[in-house]
Amino acid sequence: MIVASISTFPIDKGPSLSKYVAKAIDALEATGLRIYVGPMETTIEAPDLDAALDAVRAAHNAIAEQGSVRIFTTVKIDDRRDKRHTVERKLRAVGRWDG
Amino acid sequence: MIVASISTFPIDKGPSLSKYVAKAIDALEATGLRIYVGPMETTIEAPDLDAALDAVRAAHNAIAEQGSVRIFTTVKIDDRRDKRHTVERKLRAVGRWDG
Amino acid sequence: MIVASISTFPIDKGPSLSKYVAKAIDALEATGLRIYVGPMETTIEAPDLDAALDAVRAAHNAIAEQGSVRIFTTVKIDDRRDKRHTVERKLRAVGRWDG
Amino acid sequence: MIVASISTFPIDKGPSLSKYVAKAIDALEATGLRIYVGPMETTIEAPDLDAALDAVRAAHNAIAEQGSVRIFTTVKIDDRRDKRHTVERKLRAVGRWDG
Repeated sequence: MIVASISTFPIDKGPSLSKYVAKAIDALEATGLRIYVGPMETTIEAPDLDAALDAVRAAHNAIAEQGSVRIFTTVKIDDRRDKRHTVERKLRAVGRWDG
Repeated sequence: MIVASISTFPIDKGPSLSKYVAKAIDALEATGLRIYVGPMETTIEAPDLDAALDAVRAAHNAIAEQGSVRIFTTVKIDDRRDKRHTVERKLRAVGRWDG
Repeated sequence: MIVASISTFPIDKGPSLSKYVAKAIDALEATGLRIYVGPMETTIEAPDLDAALDAVRAAHNAIAEQGSVRIFTTVKIDDRRDKRHTVERKLRAVGRWDG
Repeated sequence: MIVASISTFPIDKGPSLSKYVAKAIDALEATGLRIYVGPMETTIEAPDLDAALDAVRAAHNAIAEQGSVRIFTTVKIDDRRDKRHTVERKLRAVGRWDG
C-alpha cells in the first residue's frame, strides 16, 4: 500500500495560489482515495503505484485546466510492502494520531 | 512569515522508521514553534528563515543522535511577505481548515 | 513539454544505495527519454505528463524488483506550456550549460 | 560530509524564472562550497549541516532580494557519516561520473 503526498501550483498566476490549489485538492478527492489535506501538501492512500500516479495526474491537470502555462508539482511516495501501511498507522506509530 | 515542512529519517536502520521519526518530531516541538504533524512531513510556522532552518537542524540532528550514519532530510519552504502567512490561513483559504 | 526529476531508493537495505539506484537509472534510460543523471536525482525530458509518470513508475519499480519492501521516491515536475522547454534551454537560460 | 540540493524560485514573478534563479546560483557559488548546477536544482558539498543550511539561506535570500514576496524553496539533504561522501563518489558509484 502506498502513502503519497502531492503539492501542485501555478508559477504564472501571482502570489495567491489558494483558488488554484483548491481545485487540485478537489481533483484528488474526486479520485475516491482517502485524502488528508495539509498546509504544504495533500496526502493520499493508494492501493498501488498506478492509483497513486493517477492521482498525481489529476491534481497536476487541475492546475493546467485553470489556464496555467507553468505548473510545478512535487511528489513524495512511501511504498511499504511488508505490512499494512496507512496514514492512520503512520501517525499512530509516532504517537500523533488525533483522528 | 514562513511555513515550512520537514521530513527526516535514517536510511540505515531498516524499514521501521517511527521510533526515529518520533524523536525528530519531539525536537521540532521543543523549538517552541507551532507544529502540525502530518503523515509524510511535519509543518512548522516560523517568524523568519533563521528560525525555520534552526528547526530543520534540530530535526535532522535528532536522527543522527540516534546512531544513524545516513540521514535523509527533505524540506519545503513557503516564505510569503505580502500578508500574514500561517498554516491556519493557508488551510482556510482552500476551504480545508478543521482546527 | 515536461522536465521532471526523480529520486528513488530503498529504506530497508542499509546505508549503501548505489547498487539499487543504478538499476533505477537504467530503467529511466530504457524509457528512451533523454536523461541527465545528477548526484541527488535524475532528470528526464518528457513530451507529456503521461510519459513522465511512466518513467517515475519504471524507476520506482526497479527498486521494488530488487527485493525492497519500503521504497521512497521523490519527484519534481516542471511543466511549461508557453515555449519549448528542455534541460538544455533551462541551463542555457541561467548561463550554466556546458553540454 | 553532506551532499545537499537546493531549488528556489519566486512564485510572484511570472513564468520566466531564469533571471531570479541565476542569482540564487551565484549566491551558492559565492559560499565557496563546490556546486553542481542541474536542470531542476543545484547540488552542494558541505562539510557539515551548518554550512549546508547557510547555503540554503544564501540561495533563498537571493530570490527575496530581487523583490519577490513569495519564495518557494525545496531542499534535499543526504548526510552520510560512515565514509567520505561527495558528488563525485556518488556518481562514480552508480557508474555515471563523467567529470
